[in-house]
Amino acid sequence: MTKDELKELLRQFKRGRVSEQHIINELTAPRFESLGFATVDHHRQLRQGFPEVILCQGKSPQQVAEIAARIIRRSQPLLATRATKNHYLAVRKKARGVHYNEAARTLTANEPKNPLRGRGVVLVVTAGTSDISVAEEAVVTARMLGNRVETLYDVGVAGIHRLFSQSNKLMSASVIIVVAGMEGALPSVVGGLVDVPVIAVPTSVGYGASFGGITALLAMLNSCASGISVVNIDNGFGAGFAASLINKK
Amino acid sequence: MTKDELKELLRQFKRGRVSEQHIINELTAPRFESLGFATVDHHRQLRQGFPEVILCQGKSPQQVAEIAARIIRRSQPLLATRATKNHYLAVRKKARGVHYNEAARTLTANEPKNPLRGRGVVLVVTAGTSDISVAEEAVVTARMLGNRVETLYDVGVAGIHRLFSQSNKLMSASVIIVVAGMEGALPSVVGGLVDVPVIAVPTSVGYGASFGGITALLAMLNSCASGISVVNIDNGFGAGFAASLINKK
Amino acid sequence: MTKDELKELLRQFKRGRVSEQHIINELTAPRFESLGFATVDHHRQLRQGFPEVILCQGKSPQQVAEIAARIIRRSQPLLATRATKNHYLAVRKKARGVHYNEAARTLTANEPKNPLRGRGVVLVVTAGTSDISVAEEAVVTARMLGNRVETLYDVGVAGIHRLFSQSNKLMSASVIIVVAGMEGALPSVVGGLVDVPVIAVPTSVGYGASFGGITALLAMLNSCASGISVVNIDNGFGAGFAASLINKK
Amino acid sequence: MTKDELKELLRQFKRGRVSEQHIINELTAPRFESLGFATVDHHRQLRQGFPEVILCQGKSPQQVAEIAARIIRRSQPLLATRATKNHYLAVRKKARGVHYNEAARTLTANEPKNPLRGRGVVLVVTAGTSDISVAEEAVVTARMLGNRVETLYDVGVAGIHRLFSQSNKLMSASVIIVVAGMEGALPSVVGGLVDVPVIAVPTSVGYGASFGGITALLAMLNSCASGISVVNIDNGFGAGFAASLINKK
Amino acid sequence: MTKDELKELLRQFKRGRVSEQHIINELTAPRFESLGFATVDHHRQLRQGFPEVILCQGKSPQQVAEIAARIIRRSQPLLATRATKNHYLAVRKKARGVHYNEAARTLTANEPKNPLRGRGVVLVVTAGTSDISVAEEAVVTARMLGNRVETLYDVGVAGIHRLFSQSNKLMSASVIIVVAGMEGALPSVVGGLVDVPVIAVPTSVGYGASFGGITALLAMLNSCASGISVVNIDNGFGAGFAASLINKK
Amino acid sequence: MTKDELKELLRQFKRGRVSEQHIINELTAPRFESLGFATVDHHRQLRQGFPEVILCQGKSPQQVAEIAARIIRRSQPLLATRATKNHYLAVRKKARGVHYNEAARTLTANEPKNPLRGRGVVLVVTAGTSDISVAEEAVVTARMLGNRVETLYDVGVAGIHRLFSQSNKLMSASVIIVVAGMEGALPSVVGGLVDVPVIAVPTSVGYGASFGGITALLAMLNSCASGISVVNIDNGFGAGFAASLINKK
Amino acid sequence: MTKDELKELLRQFKRGRVSEQHIINELTAPRFESLGFATVDHHRQLRQGFPEVILCQGKSPQQVAEIAARIIRRSQPLLATRATKNHYLAVRKKARGVHYNEAARTLTANEPKNPLRGRGVVLVVTAGTSDISVAEEAVVTARMLGNRVETLYDVGVAGIHRLFSQSNKLMSASVIIVVAGMEGALPSVVGGLVDVPVIAVPTSVGYGASFGGITALLAMLNSCASGISVVNIDNGFGAGFAASLINKK
Amino acid sequence: MTKDELKELLRQFKRGRVSEQHIINELTAPRFESLGFATVDHHRQLRQGFPEVILCQGKSPQQVAEIAARIIRRSQPLLATRATKNHYLAVRKKARGVHYNEAARTLTANEPKNPLRGRGVVLVVTAGTSDISVAEEAVVTARMLGNRVETLYDVGVAGIHRLFSQSNKLMSASVIIVVAGMEGALPSVVGGLVDVPVIAVPTSVGYGASFGGITALLAMLNSCASGISVVNIDNGFGAGFAASLINKK
Repeated sequence: MTKDELKELLRQFKRGRVSEQHIINELTAPRFESLGFATVDHHRQLRQGFPEVILCQGKSPQQVAEIAARIIRRSQPLLATRATKNHYLAVRKKARGVHYNEAARTLTANEPKNPLRGRGVVLVVTAGTSDISVAEEAVVTARMLGNRVETLYDVGVAGIHRLFSQSNKLMSASVIIVVAGMEGALPSVVGGLVDVPVIAVPTSVGYGASFGGITALLAMLNSCASGISVVNIDNGFGAGFAASLINKK
Repeated sequence: MTKDELKELLRQFKRGRVSEQHIINELTAPRFESLGFATVDHHRQLRQGFPEVILCQGKSPQQVAEIAARIIRRSQPLLATRATKNHYLAVRKKARGVHYNEAARTLTANEPKNPLRGRGVVLVVTAGTSDISVAEEAVVTARMLGNRVETLYDVGVAGIHRLFSQSNKLMSASVIIVVAGMEGALPSVVGGLVDVPVIAVPTSVGYGASFGGITALLAMLNSCASGISVVNIDNGFGAGFAASLINKK
Repeated sequence: MTKDELKELLRQFKRGRVSEQHIINELTAPRFESLGFATVDHHRQLRQGFPEVILCQGKSPQQVAEIAARIIRRSQPLLATRATKNHYLAVRKKARGVHYNEAARTLTANEPKNPLRGRGVVLVVTAGTSDISVAEEAVVTARMLGNRVETLYDVGVAGIHRLFSQSNKLMSASVIIVVAGMEGALPSVVGGLVDVPVIAVPTSVGYGASFGGITALLAMLNSCASGISVVNIDNGFGAGFAASLINKK
Repeated sequence: MTKDELKELLRQFKRGRVSEQHIINELTAPRFESLGFATVDHHRQLRQGFPEVILCQGKSPQQVAEIAARIIRRSQPLLATRATKNHYLAVRKKARGVHYNEAARTLTANEPKNPLRGRGVVLVVTAGTSDISVAEEAVVTARMLGNRVETLYDVGVAGIHRLFSQSNKLMSASVIIVVAGMEGALPSVVGGLVDVPVIAVPTSVGYGASFGGITALLAMLNSCASGISVVNIDNGFGAGFAASLINKK
Repeated sequence: MTKDELKELLRQFKRGRVSEQHIINELTAPRFESLGFATVDHHRQLRQGFPEVILCQGKSPQQVAEIAARIIRRSQPLLATRATKNHYLAVRKKARGVHYNEAARTLTANEPKNPLRGRGVVLVVTAGTSDISVAEEAVVTARMLGNRVETLYDVGVAGIHRLFSQSNKLMSASVIIVVAGMEGALPSVVGGLVDVPVIAVPTSVGYGASFGGITALLAMLNSCASGISVVNIDNGFGAGFAASLINKK
Repeated sequence: MTKDELKELLRQFKRGRVSEQHIINELTAPRFESLGFATVDHHRQLRQGFPEVILCQGKSPQQVAEIAARIIRRSQPLLATRATKNHYLAVRKKARGVHYNEAARTLTANEPKNPLRGRGVVLVVTAGTSDISVAEEAVVTARMLGNRVETLYDVGVAGIHRLFSQSNKLMSASVIIVVAGMEGALPSVVGGLVDVPVIAVPTSVGYGASFGGITALLAMLNSCASGISVVNIDNGFGAGFAASLINKK
Repeated sequence: MTKDELKELLRQFKRGRVSEQHIINELTAPRFESLGFATVDHHRQLRQGFPEVILCQGKSPQQVAEIAARIIRRSQPLLATRATKNHYLAVRKKARGVHYNEAARTLTANEPKNPLRGRGVVLVVTAGTSDISVAEEAVVTARMLGNRVETLYDVGVAGIHRLFSQSNKLMSASVIIVVAGMEGALPSVVGGLVDVPVIAVPTSVGYGASFGGITALLAMLNSCASGISVVNIDNGFGAGFAASLINKK
Repeated sequence: MTKDELKELLRQFKRGRVSEQHIINELTAPRFESLGFATVDHHRQLRQGFPEVILCQGKSPQQVAEIAARIIRRSQPLLATRATKNHYLAVRKKARGVHYNEAARTLTANEPKNPLRGRGVVLVVTAGTSDISVAEEAVVTARMLGNRVETLYDVGVAGIHRLFSQSNKLMSASVIIVVAGMEGALPSVVGGLVDVPVIAVPTSVGYGASFGGITALLAMLNSCASGISVVNIDNGFGAGFAASLINKK
């Protein structure tokens, strides 16, 4: 139940279209559900506008399937990240209508039909081809949360004219997610060109002294362009979620 | 010249209230100015809505004064961060109406009279008393950029009821900046409660294995709450700037 | 032989129920036994209340089996941690009554029948589902050492109401072990609510800048809540052992 | 108000020795007090048995004095750590009966007259002479919290017979705090000898690759002796507080 | 004596313009000179084209003065880096014609009158104003080694049009030294635009997670632009020296 | 199209040997080509003298094959680094004349027939046998870019006479690439002997505290020999490219 | 040829028992041999008393076999470390009499029959069972170099009486190698008891914050016992070699 | 009392030249002395051949003076390292005949008159002039322990002929201490030339990525020359002590 659904419920009750028993049931439904190995936070959709997202990494396929089943059962939108094929197979046994996006490593169900009204465009940009997997996680996340999303891939600073030639896309976005590994310089260049929030996502792309993304992370945190904020290495989900919160308003 | 001022100028010209010569002068004014030791980016206000901000650290008082004078001369708003008393004294000799905020370590001039219309509240929260200096840099920055700002200080997780008792403030903000040192846990708790963007600012407050803020930085990057983004250690300015970009829309 | 058994033996001797030869044999039994590749410390049970615990990691199945056999032969309780299936199979060939707990990765034998009298409850809490494996190592360890153990899993700070709803459990424990990965914030919140010792266990759960548990470890070491102490990353055994020493008194 | 005081108050009320108005006032007294720069947690004594402890580092003398005055005004015990002479001078102006311990860098007031009944001995051990300052912070903390404390200084592993000659002290303690810098080996040796909880405190004593205490911290976290838990570098306060929580039971 | 001077000497001898005794003296002059605390390498000019350069840091003013005097006495060019005012004062007492450049922190003597023939331009670029001190060390070094040097300061990526407007300078250089702190992104952008060698110099300019230049260093090492090589943090001297070796050919 | 080809084209046009339509086509050909997952920079050959080099690591065989095909189709020289056998097989399906060098892990096509006129020798030196794979990447890169290359392998500092016996090779090179793992000392020794640019390549050869090449990288950055510059760990490609830019002039 | 063999050769020549041609052949034999991928240092036995030792890690079985064959062909003793079964199989094809020690991961041939006269005992001690593999590398190395070697395994500080009970062995050794992982405390305790050189070998045994042996390495470098020196993580070979150099005198 | 003195005492007693009471007094003298802040280990001279050495860093001048007085009172040789002028002044008030060596930062008393018989030469080598302070600490330590010491300063690898020209000194030493900062390459070169033990001492000399000596430390630990062992950064004392233990035999 989102905040909007709650408002609607209260209005329906006032107008007598919904019984007292019904609204009491709805309001006293448990705020979380204990599975022993997990305590599913059903209240999160009301509190934050989206139900609990499942981070599959570190969870067994069975555990993911159990949690996913409970979310789908309540007709809530499902988003599970860092899912392997095995996670997908286990979930599919428990619930229908689940989609597996291999590039983004996501499981989704009950996807929104259309972007929510009033939202601008979330633009997802990558420095290289190898950054696309992380970018796609951001794309799926932002779409699940009701946003329109566009992409601009492989426009890193070693051939900076590729970025400049697309300045229209940059200028018309409401929020920009910039995904880069190696030296992580692209967010600084983008951040110096636009006047909308830029979320930088370092990736583990690179070798040697890229240290699995630490170099890109540090570079982004030290950006000389103003107003850039950063999420964890390879955290496309976090960037997509933050972009959606920003785009909402 | 901001984008709005540019639009206005073009309209005035169309209506004949501004001469061709005047608009040509305005449009062909140099986009930057070279001082030898600095290349002042006068185009930034048009591109990003605010002129170049001066990071005083690493610059001599004379250098800061020269750059500040050029900004003030154009009646642009001035914001200089990490300013010492000596920077202030040098600027004061070159220009009038400059204010020094010792807690925030900022120099400002041509401050906006009122918050810009249509903006929500930027809420700045700290975990402890020692984090306030960084928080104040965020406060000054967000105010200079036209935002209404409220604060909630010293409500860290060791006495979490202090935060919960202020949930009204949390729920009514448009963007929340959470400033914390030591274990940097507060943004995760705040991020789990609200549905607006949260910008986390790690501070160098702590000792031993806090490593000058690295621990807080890492904790914030790894937050289990969705949608938190992070800026550099002690970077109150960056958080205030990002919050303003988010609040604008 | 534990201290209590030693006391009993001396009393029996005094009362003439045990021969001089018998007590001399007991007291002069070798304090350790050399297997070439290992020097088994048989004195530890007397000194510390529990025989040597075998860390299987880095030892071959054969080595573990040899050491385990010597412990079981003396009817001492056996605890082996970080055991793989192969370790289990090798031990099973050498000794009877050995149990393998796959989740906790432990081998046990001669388990205590009941918790020791006079002990309070050791409560083991996790932030997420992925932390459960480490938590179970703590559970098995504390039980082997004679403690009553309860658990509370997946109650991390992103949905903090899940924790608060269980405050009864928190308030009635004698020692609390808090297991968390990622930003490691849960021990600070728990530590701020209770007045019993809290042992924090960082886990390697997370990705990117969680650095295999370093972030959680650092966060816990820097906790702003008083009285929290920390063990090594993924060291459920150490936490269970320390909790037992605390609970003993 | 501690839990014991609360119980007493309720009994007095039941017996009619305390008016309804009085108990209502006591129970509805604000749980915290906002000073703008600080939110003093007056509820902590009830929740955790001791009022908020002030970490002076990072706070101005005036800020510390304001907070200390509020604690002393309520006749609560005061403990402020990492205090400089300037902090002391500022507090002394605001409140009477404050003591400054230069070695331990603590400010105290309303110290307990005697150790609490039923408590064992907290033993504080150091490896070297340079570790004593941190050890003394633990000593003062444990004493303020009502414990009997003994010390054993400069008995590091390079002359291990110094430690063994004091085994009586080791064996009769209820909790042992071991403070060491450099290679931090002493807790492992102590932990192998005793059957009570050992809290290890790494110190920043050393040079070169001691990295300000990181080496000692890491060594303690990796101790091969069972049941050792660790606090932050130079965190004598944390060790003293944890020892007191353990000793309480 | 440089290689060219050696060739000339041999030719003069062949033509009888120089006596046998003279050439023997020259060729048998000691290849180094021991001062007890230093072993001055007089052979280096012949081997590498420039005499030993003195790194003043870590040496006392007296030590620097002794070494400098021996170099000047042989009419060799003197270059001493990281010199303080005290080093300068000590050297001035021992030798004439020494110049102190406070911004570059260099001492020089016997400077070359003109750039060597056949050399192109060494262009030194900085991202910010605070990087200029390191850049000037590179400028002085390259000039002492006989190169023509031009500069382009404060053209960092946050206002990338400042760089593009100077593409003439970039395109006409023979070697480019790019000096940057913070996220160190500028060398990647420059390296993507030109087809001459680019030497990147990270500086310690920045704060928080810039870690005294480590972030810039790592970013430069991971540059996605081809053909960039990197020197130590703040090592303007090394960059100037390498640029001169490259420019020589 | 290289710069030389562009010059030729313009001259042909002036002389009337090339039609206006033809030159317009050439000059307006797209500067990059979007494949969705990649934005191939066709302008790079004109700007930097060599087309985009493909870093295979992190790209799927299909992606590499698509990009390679587009480069070969334009008769441009192909260089792909860190290629696996699978990358090779995929490329071979799309294009002819591709060579796979397993030691160097490179794919090449349209190799230059002869070294370019006027170039000196690029000498590639290794400290050990295990460094040869990285060295070969440098060799292939430099050859593809038109340079003459010689090698000197396994002449590390533990048997320094092996290096000195080859001083002829060292003295006659125009640029020297020194490849070393472990303590990375060889570039310092080479750099002290020669007067040409030395590019140091740290390798991940070693164990324990070599930290995958970090030790060699740091040693090279801190070389006491003047004029050494450094590339990323195992970055033979970068060293070969930089050497070629230097050798060009 | 060792120094002793050289002396003997010269004496034989003087006495006329060896022809001029023979001694010239011996003395002018090449000091190294180039295999393309390796430059075998045949002079090392004369210079350092033992021929080049082969580090197999990073070399192909074929490369190791080629080098080994050349050493064995000259009847020199062969020692190859970090050898896998595959290295062994390749060498066995090229040469006879090669032994593979799986625990120590060494290949040896032409082993000395007896320890050299006048040498004391090299004692190799380990803290745990998992450290034995590294210890065995030291044992094999020291034996190959002509030393008598004794061992004392699994006597770590958690049960320190195991060490003290063997003080005879400790006191009668000429050099002691102490091998330990985890907190690396054993060398400090041993170093405080004896008056002979102690060489500490950190191992990668441990988990979590042992960081693959970094913790043990740092602890050993910071030992408070005087006169301990340290080699690389898991470098049993280096310790055995250093012990032999010490024992020689 | 050293071991030799103990032997002599026992012989004297046997021959009746020393009374029973005297020898009982000597043998039962306390093995350590407690000063509250320090537990002076008087037994160390017997156990290790030299009394406790005082590390002044971290101790107050008064503490050092108290300990030093007790050592001098027993006519034992005094060595105190990392002493400041203030430590010296405090000791001088308590005891006579104390010498302060400012370069080495040592306090000494009761120095040995001559080197002990039968000892070879300890050679101390530095790479640069700035390493001399650490080297001098090693020199003073080795001399206090009865060794003959020679030095060879400023012969680093950038001018390697300076080292080779002194090969006589290298070849005639019994132990060599090599002190170097920056890239720490000198021990590898020395270690490849000699057949005696080499102790490497990294120093904190350098800047930027030398990280206060970490780079030199790591380089030395990874030396490709066999038989090098390493001590802590700037630990001249440890190197001198280890060299003396090696030289003793």
